Formats: sequence, C-alpha cells, structure tokens
Amino acid sequence: MTSAIRPLVISNVRLADDPSGQPVSVSVAGGRIEAIGPNLAPPPGALVEDGGGALLLPGFVEGHTHLDKTHWGRDWYVNEVGPNLTDRIANEREFRKASGHDAGVQSLALSHAFLAAGTTRLRTHVDIDTDAGLRYLEGVLGTRDTLADVLDMQIVAFPQSGLLIRPGTEKLLGDALAAGADVLGALDPALIDGDPAGSLNATFALAERYGKPIDIHLHEPGEVGAFTFKLLLDRVEAMGMQGRVVVSHAFCLGALPEPTALLERIARLRVALLTSAPPSRPVPPLKRCRELGITIFGGNDGIRDTWTPFGMPDMLERAMLIGMRYDMRRDDDLALAFDCVSAAGAQGCGFADYGLHAGARADLVLVDAETLAHAVVARPVRKLVVSNGRVVARGGVLAGAA
Amino acid sequence: MTSAIRPLVISNVRLADDPSGQPVSVSVAGGRIEAIGPNLAPPPGALVEDGGGALLLPGFVEGHTHLDKTHWGRDWYVNEVGPNLTDRIANEREFRKASGHDAGVQSLALSHAFLAAGTTRLRTHVDIDTDAGLRYLEGVLGTRDTLADVLDMQIVAFPQSGLLIRPGTEKLLGDALAAGADVLGALDPALIDGDPAGSLNATFALAERYGKPIDIHLHEPGEVGAFTFKLLLDRVEAMGMQGRVVVSHAFCLGALPEPTALLERIARLRVALLTSAPPSRPVPPLKRCRELGITIFGGNDGIRDTWTPFGMPDMLERAMLIGMRYDMRRDDDLALAFDCVSAAGAQGCGFADYGLHAGARADLVLVDAETLAHAVVARPVRKLVVSNGRVVARGGVLAGAA
Repeated sequence: MTSAIRPLVISNVRLADDPSGQPVSVSVAGGRIEAIGPNLAPPPGALVEDGGGALLLPGFVEGHTHLDKTHWGRDWYVNEVGPNLTDRIANEREFRKASGHDAGVQSLALSHAFLAAGTTRLRTHVDIDTDAGLRYLEGVLGTRDTLADVLDMQIVAFPQSGLLIRPGTEKLLGDALAAGADVLGALDPALIDGDPAGSLNATFALAERYGKPIDIHLHEPGEVGAFTFKLLLDRVEAMGMQGRVVVSHAFCLGALPEPTALLERIARLRVALLTSAPPSRPVPPLKRCRELGITIFGGNDGIRDTWTPFGMPDMLERAMLIGMRYDMRRDDDLALAFDCVSAAGAQGCGFADYGLHAGARADLVLVDAETLAHAVVARPVRKLVVSNGRVVARGGVLAGAA
Repeated sequence: MTSAIRPLVISNVRLADDPSGQPVSVSVAGGRIEAIGPNLAPPPGALVEDGGGALLLPGFVEGHTHLDKTHWGRDWYVNEVGPNLTDRIANEREFRKASGHDAGVQSLALSHAFLAAGTTRLRTHVDIDTDAGLRYLEGVLGTRDTLADVLDMQIVAFPQSGLLIRPGTEKLLGDALAAGADVLGALDPALIDGDPAGSLNATFALAERYGKPIDIHLHEPGEVGAFTFKLLLDRVEAMGMQGRVVVSHAFCLGALPEPTALLERIARLRVALLTSAPPSRPVPPLKRCRELGITIFGGNDGIRDTWTPFGMPDMLERAMLIGMRYDMRRDDDLALAFDCVSAAGAQGCGFADYGLHAGARADLVLVDAETLAHAVVARPVRKLVVSNGRVVARGGVLAGAA
C-alpha cells in the first residue's frame, strides 16, 4: 500500500447509461472525480490510462459480509456441520478456538480479493463473544488500517453467539464500539436470545449510549420474524433512530401473506434492508420495497467459512445471484440488481460521496462488457480498478497501491 | 476437428473419492479409459500429459439446454420482454424470424464454449414450429455432425409454441424424429395446449410410432402440474414407457403439501426429473427424490437468449447453483450437486459408458482444486479437457481436436 497519489486520466471508456456509446474520459485528482466528459486533457504529470472502450462502472459496495470468518486462501474446510443455526454457531466457535484461524490474516486476504474484483467499500460484521473477546475485531481493525487508503470499511460489532444468553457480551459490544467498530450488530432477538423485547431494549440502549447505528441479523421466519420486526420498529420510532437501522436478511418479509402495512412502516421509519438473495430462503419483495421508497441493498453474507462453502468476493456475481433470485430477466431489472451492489449499497450503509460524478470519491471499475446487464451476467475480469484515486488492480490482479 | 487419435496418458492427478490424495495416472486408447492407477507406463507413441496434481473429474453432462436459441458470441440482446410464458414464446418466435439469428452458427458457438469448460455430453431441446419448420433442427444437426468426434449430443424435438394449438406441429415433430432427433419433446399440456389428456395422448402416440423416448417441459405449477403429472404417469404405465421419460422442471413437485405418493409413483415408473434449480421457482425435493430412487439431474435450460440473460456453459457453475438452491453446504451434499451434472445426468439422459473407470468413454476434466466441493464453489478454469480420448481444451481454451 502506498499513499502516494498522482492525478489520473482514464480515456476511452463508455457509460452504462449513455446508449450512444460515445467514449468519454474521467479525470481524477486528490482521490476525487474531477470531471467525466469527452476529450479531457490530462494535466502535466498525470498517469494516463487507455480504457480501450471498456464500460465504466462505479466501485462496488459489499453491504454485508464476515471478513473475520473466512477461510479464503487457506486449505479447504471440509464441512460436516449439522443443519441448525445453533449447530453452526457452536461449530464455528469451537473451530475458531482450536484451528489457529487468524482473523487479521484472513480478513486481509479476502479484502485483497474484494479489491481485485472492484469492491472499494464494504461493511463487515465481526464476531464478538465471550470466548474470543475482541480478538477478531483487533484483526479486522488491523486490516482496515493496512488498507485505509484504498478500502472504505465499516465494521459491525456482531454478537454471533447471542447477546442476553451469553452474559458479558453486552459489555464486550460496548468495548468494541469504543475500540473502533462503527455499527452495533444484533441477532435474532426471539429465536436466539429468547427474549425479543429484552434483547432489542439492550441493543437500542447500547446504540444510544455509544451514538452508533444498528445492523441486525434477522433470520426469524414468517410470523415470528414479523413480530420481532414490529418490536424493532417501535424502538426505532421511540428512540429517534430513523435512517440509522439496517435489518439484514429479513426472510420474514418474503413469507407474509400481506406484508404491505409492515413495509409501509419500514419505509416511513427509513429502516433499510439487506439481502444476500439466498436461493433457498424467502426474501423481501425487492421491487415492492423500492416502490415504497425502502432502501434495499445486497451483500454476500459469509464467504467460504464454516457456515457456507459458497460466496465469491465479486459483487457482479452477487448482482447476478440477486437477479436470478428475483427472476430479473430484463435489462432494466438487471440495472436494479446492480444498484443493490452499488448506489443502494452506499445509501444503505451510509457511504458518502458515492457514484460517477464530479466530486465523488474516485472509485472506478472498468470491464469489457457491452452493457450493464452484460457485465452482471458475464462477470468479466476487472480490467482496471481504481479506489480513492489509486490504481489498485489490473486484469483482476492487485497492483501496487493495494 | 480431427479424428486422428493417439493413445494418451495423463499422469499425476488426484481422484475426488480418494482422501489419501495419492497421485494416479489415467491411460486412454481408442477413445476409452484403459486404466486408472499409480505409475502407468505410457505405450510407445502415446501423448503424455502431466496433470500437475490436478483433480481428475469425469466430463460433465448438460442435461437440458437450448443450443438453437442462444445469442452466445453475438451482440448483447436487450431484453424488454413481458413477464408471461406466452409473451416469451411469441417474442422469441418473432425475433428469430426477423433477426437473422442462425441456429447452426449459434449452436456451434455455444457447443465450443461447453467443450472448453468440460462438458462432453449434452441434451439440447430444439424448437420445432410451423413458422420455422425444421430449420433450427437442421442447424443443430450440422453442429452435431461437425463435433461428432468430441461432443456426444442428444437432440430433443421440442414444440416450443405448443402442439395441439398449432396445427401442423405434430407432423413436423414426426419429421424431426425421422430426420435425426433422438427424443420427443413436449410442453405444458394443460396450460399451453389447453387439453392435457389430448396433448399427452398425441405425444405418447408419436413417441410410440417413432420408437423414441420423451422429455417434457412441465412448468405447470402446484395442483395443475400435479394433475398433468398424474395423467402423464398413467400413460407411461399404459404404454410401457418406464425408464424412457424425463420430466423437465417439474416445479409442481416443489409446491405440493404432500408429494410422497406422487414421488413414489414416479420412482416406480422410472421417470427421471431434470432441474435447473431456478432460485425463483419451487423445485423438486432433490434429496427425497434420491432417497426414493428417482434419477434427478441438472441442466442450464436456456443460456443467454431472448428468454433469459443468465446461464453459462459451465456445469460446475450449474452444480454450484444447484447447491445454493438446495442449501447444500456440506461437502457430501455438494457431491450430490456435482452428481446432478455428471453421473446422474448420464443416467437420466441415457448416455452409456460414463464415468472414471476402465472401459468408459474417455471424457476427462482436470481442475486445480483441492476437493470436489472446492471445484464446485470455485469453478476453476479447466486445465485440460479430454473428450472421447481427444484433448479438446487446455486452460479454458479450445485445443486442436475441437
């Protein structure tokens, strides 16, 4: 990594929303986009890159992953885990104690792979529990520091093993927020903690004490999930947390016969939704959410860890999976799938200065694709990735700045 | 393409079912596997390939695609099609009339891509309708002939625009079977043809007349689909078609509250099921089917055509999608997903002499992967592909023999 930064001009790229296909240039200085337009003259000393007619996309946003858990780059983990959520939680806690798995090394390996594939902003949940304390957080904070110039990372302090059911966790979550975590996480207040009101009360009180937003894993299905969701919305309203809460997964919203009233309240309270678009679970109704003004965005969830063998640090692939899950076959639908891993992701996480416009952070991805939809389904190698004004990858391989 | 064939020995490969990881060699002659074992001495004149410790897999089987429809290698098709099955059918028929889309050129392009990614056996449905007649079939027959030495292709004569509702189609289907199609196709006897008994009667009569097996697209949902399925099973039983019928898609089997009786009858009549494992539709219960002895196998369905932008000619990716759809996270589950695009595919389609054993057709794929599950989720570039004893691709790129 280097913090040296030269002005940069990328010529001969196409914009996805310009059907004329006219080539344009992008000029970048001080980590920001200066201008996008035809025939921009490079300033003296600028690095000039020929885009070769590639499609120009904004850097991708990973809205929900678990950098601290991954085995990326390690020996293959043979998964023989039982089928229940509690099996997976207990198995992982034991594995991480016994295996020498290092959250710092692993989060750096996966972050590098994300950068090489064009993700420049990322929200990661990091396990906080009474066995590990803040050890995983420390590893991920190290990775954030190492990549500070090129990867904009938000860290969620996440009680993977439960909050109320593991006394001591609440204190550790507070310590994590004080140590640098940006967001307070939570997990299934009814089905894991067994006390939805009490668990949510504890979470909201902690968020208020540290002045942090909330991102809660809500796997609870159907009516149970909807019940928990309503309790959560009551607290968003009572505590003035509008616009500061994300509900991740929210499977329940895909399984209710009549979700409209609940969705309308979610929209009113500006609660955002995160989906990994799992093919085997109900998912929130994406288009209906967007019609109501709800921010809904995408993420991988875990990638190649003790929970799941699946996942790639490639947000174009996640956009494709979102498209498949919601049966989005039209080009305008695939643009929505891409929005979930770009602008809507930035909106949902609160990453500022996002997009392809003058003044935005210069996070740019070039791909050889005819159209945006083509890029989503074909997932071509990233020809060039620029993050915060620095060239971080070429041809899918990390370059100097990362 | 060449029909020249030298003996071949591939050394230093690993077998997925041998946890010892001991390197073995494979010797091939006359298009067949001669032996698999340690330290096989190459015969004089043999081509010797160093497998470099790669994992050895059998050639993949695509159980259901539509080679004649694809835009693979053409300009991007902007999809603005309406949401109904009938919209998609009408749109495609018009597009193919007006666009100069050539089923011969397109089927060859996609077949090449399948070969480069390790698929050596493939069942394709080809549209037969009263606008196009046998034109698409002729194109695909040309591709089959061109690739006869390296791609084992079954062709299904498929009434995409309906059978009874388009008079003249039945005659054309007969002509297609006489011209070289291997299997009789069919489509939604109730919801497209509007006459489930009549449509099935016509299909079974035609199959009997030409002595061909049947592969029917059954998209019909829930109880309607189950009703059609029962009528179909009655005819399988009455006409002695046990073991000669595939039902593709069979979404209805994923939506019935109590499918056991129907599944047991499917098993008894040796009707096989094909699934593309679509994330947005109900799917047959894969493990339950296997427990009952039903052959269930996998396919892409269409790839990048007017129906769908999705799909890749990569059966490892399809296995991954099957794994995700069925929430298969364990290594032993991912082996089932791979089975759907390998041995079960060969069983379901009736491709003979399949597998990694002496005497089998020498269809081999080498990948740099630690385990079978790793190969499925990572989908690495195919290091070497051998089909019918010929090297057809190296490093994901076609070699001489294809």
